[in-house]
Amino acid sequence: MESERETLQVWKERVEQELDRVVAFWVEHSHDQEHGGFFTCLGHDGKVFDDLKYVWLQARQVWMYCRLYRHFQRFHQSQLLDSAKAGGEFLLRCARVAPPGKKCAFVLTRDGRPGKVQRTIFSECFYTMAMNELWRVTGEVRYQNEAVGMMDEIVHWVREDPSGLGQPQLSGAPAAEPMAVPMMLLHLVQQLSEDNAELAGKYAELEDWCAHRILQHVQRDGQVVLENVSVDGKELPGCLGRHQNPGHALEAGWFLLRYASRKEDPKLRAHIIDKFLLLPFHSGWDEEYGGLFYFKDADGLCPTQFRDSERGEWFGYLNREGKVALTIKGGPFKGCFHVPRCLAMCEKMLGSLLSRVATDPDPSCSPSSAPVRRGAK
Amino acid sequence: MESERETLQVWKERVEQELDRVVAFWVEHSHDQEHGGFFTCLGHDGKVFDDLKYVWLQARQVWMYCRLYRHFQRFHQSQLLDSAKAGGEFLLRCARVAPPGKKCAFVLTRDGRPGKVQRTIFSECFYTMAMNELWRVTGEVRYQNEAVGMMDEIVHWVREDPSGLGQPQLSGAPAAEPMAVPMMLLHLVQQLSEDNAELAGKYAELEDWCAHRILQHVQRDGQVVLENVSVDGKELPGCLGRHQNPGHALEAGWFLLRYASRKEDPKLRAHIIDKFLLLPFHSGWDEEYGGLFYFKDADGLCPTQFRDSERGEWFGYLNREGKVALTIKGGPFKGCFHVPRCLAMCEKMLGSLLSRVATDPDPSCSPSSAPVRRGAK
Repeated sequence: MESERETLQVWKERVEQELDRVVAFWVEHSHDQEHGGFFTCLGHDGKVFDDLKYVWLQARQVWMYCRLYRHFQRFHQSQLLDSAKAGGEFLLRCARVAPPGKKCAFVLTRDGRPGKVQRTIFSECFYTMAMNELWRVTGEVRYQNEAVGMMDEIVHWVREDPSGLGQPQLSGAPAAEPMAVPMMLLHLVQQLSEDNAELAGKYAELEDWCAHRILQHVQRDGQVVLENVSVDGKELPGCLGRHQNPGHALEAGWFLLRYASRKEDPKLRAHIIDKFLLLPFHSGWDEEYGGLFYFKDADGLCPTQFRDSERGEWFGYLNREGKVALTIKGGPFKGCFHVPRCLAMCEKMLGSLLSRVATDPDPSCSPSSAPVRRGAK
Repeated sequence: MESERETLQVWKERVEQELDRVVAFWVEHSHDQEHGGFFTCLGHDGKVFDDLKYVWLQARQVWMYCRLYRHFQRFHQSQLLDSAKAGGEFLLRCARVAPPGKKCAFVLTRDGRPGKVQRTIFSECFYTMAMNELWRVTGEVRYQNEAVGMMDEIVHWVREDPSGLGQPQLSGAPAAEPMAVPMMLLHLVQQLSEDNAELAGKYAELEDWCAHRILQHVQRDGQVVLENVSVDGKELPGCLGRHQNPGHALEAGWFLLRYASRKEDPKLRAHIIDKFLLLPFHSGWDEEYGGLFYFKDADGLCPTQFRDSERGEWFGYLNREGKVALTIKGGPFKGCFHVPRCLAMCEKMLGSLLSRVATDPDPSCSPSSAPVRRGAK
C-alpha cells in the first residue's frame, strides 16, 4: 500500500513538473502581444518560424488556458486568464470568414485575415469549445451565446444540410463517415453539458446519435476499429476503408467511456474498453520499437497517409525508431493542447488515486477495482 | 577512350534492363482490362491495394507508353499501343467532371466516376500531354484537338482568369506562384511544339513568359531557388516562402536548358546550370547519408511539408537513412512515369554518348565537352 502510494506520488510530481514546463513554454513564446492570439509555429527553442495562425489551434489554446485557470490553483492567475481572453477576442474578431455567417477560416494571417478555408467542421468545433470555456471562467454570457450558436450551426451541417460546408457532391466520392465527426460532436456535447442540465437535455438525443455512430466504426465482427465507414455503418473499400488510427480509436474510447458512465451502462462500458481501448492498443503497438503506430492498414498493407488528409498528417514527427524526425514543438497542426491536456488529466487522476489510497486502509481494495469516476475533465 | 566506351556501354545495358523491368511491372499488373485505364496503387508485388484511378497518373502512363512506343524499337509493339489507346479512351470518357467543361477530376472510381477535384491545373496538364502523344502515335486528329483545346483552357486559367479553377479569393491568402505552374506550362509548350512549327509559333510568347517566371524563383541574390515567390517575383514570408524542393529545381533546370538551347543563348544556359543544377544539387545533398533531401527550408529551419501540399507529399517513401519507409511501388502519387522516363532518357543519352565516342577517334575530345544536344525527350 505504502509503495503504491509512493509510486503514485512520484508520478504525480513528475507530471506536475512536466505540465509546468509545457505551459511555461507556450506562455513564454506564443503570445502575440501586438495582434492577440497565439503563435503556434514554434521551433525547439520557441522561436517563431511562421506567424500564420491556425484557427483550431488558437481555439484549443484558449480552451487549455481556461481549463488550467479553473482547475489548478497554481494556474489560477490573472495573466493566464487575460491571455485566454485576448485569444478569445482574436477569434471573435477574425475567425469567421464572412460574418454573420458562421464558417471559420482554417488559417489566418498574423493580423487575422483569412488565408484558407477547410470544408470540415473542426475549426468551428474548437471555436465552440473555447467560447464555452471563456463563459465558464468569466461569466460573460456573450461567450456562451457564441458557443451555442456555433454548436447549433455545426449540428445543422452534420445532421441536416452540409451544403454550408461547401463540399462538392461528386458521383464517385465515397459516402464515408470519418470517425472524427461524431467524436468531435460527442466531445462538444460533453463540454457544453458539464454542470448544465438544460443543455444536457437539449443535446441528449445528439449524444446518443454520436455514440451510436462511433460504435459503428467497430467492424469485421469486432476485430477492428476503422476510421471511415459508410454512412449506413458498413466497411468501405480501398485504402480509405482500411485506414486505421490507433490513437484516434483510443481517444474515441475515452469519450465513449464518459458517455457510458453517464448512461450507467456497464455492458456498454465493457464493450468500449474491449474494442476502443484494449483492441487498438494491442493491434496498434509496434512490437519491434515500442510506441503506437500513427496509421495502420486493416489488412496489414502499407498505409498511404502521407497526404491529403483533411485533418493533416502528423506522420513524420518521430520516425519509426523513435528518432525525432522534426524538431518543431508547434506547427500548423500541433499547438498548446494535447500534451498539456494529457498531463493535466494525469495529474488530476493521480491526485484522485492518491487520495483514495490515503483514505482507504484496506490493502485488498486496490485503486484499479474502484469504479471509473468521471474526472474533472 | 576504350575504357570510357566500356563504362558507357555497361551503364547503357544496365539502364536498358532496368527500363525493361520497370515497364514489365506496369504492363503486367496495372492494366484494367475491364474498365480501361490503369491501376496505379500497386504493392511491392504488383497487387492492387486500391482501385482508385488518379487522372494525372492515368495520363502520365498513356504518355509514357506512347513515348516508349515511338522512341524504342523493342517497345514498338501493338500491345503497348493498344494499352495506351485504351487509357486514352478512359480519359476521354471519364476525366472531365462536367463536359463540355474542361475541368478534370483529380481522382476517379475504377469505373470512372469523379471522386475529387483539385483546384489546380495538373490533371489537365497531363491530360494534354497524353492526348498529344496519342496523336503522334496514331495520327488521329481528334486527340490533337483534345490536346490543344485543353492547353488553351489551361493557359486561360493561368494567364487570364483562374476562376474556372474554383480557388477561393481570401484576403489573407498569399499571392504566391508555385514554381510548378510555369514549369508545367513550359513542359507542355515543349511537348506540343516538338516538330510542330505552327504550335511553336503560337506558344512562343507563352514559352518566354514561363521561362521568365521560373527564373524569378532564384532569390537572395542568386543564393537559393524557392518553390514559391510572390506574383511580382519577390520572396514570401513564412514556411511557404522558405520552402525548397531541390529535385524540383533540378527538373526546372532541365526544362530551362531545353529552352536555352532553342533560344541559342549560352549566357542563359550557364546561368541555368549554375542556379538550377549545381546550386540545388549541392545545397540539397545530404552530406551524412547521401541522396537529395525532398524538402528543405531556405533558412535551415525544419520543413513542415508533411501535409496539405496540392501536389501531394512524397515525404516518407525513404526515410533519411535510406531505408524504405513504404513498400508501395505505385500509389496515389506515384505511377508509371518518373522512373521509366528517367531510365528511357538515360538510355538515349548513353546511346548518344556511345556513338560519339565510337565515331570520334581523338582521345582529347571527351564527351563532356560536346555541346548539349537536345535529346529525344
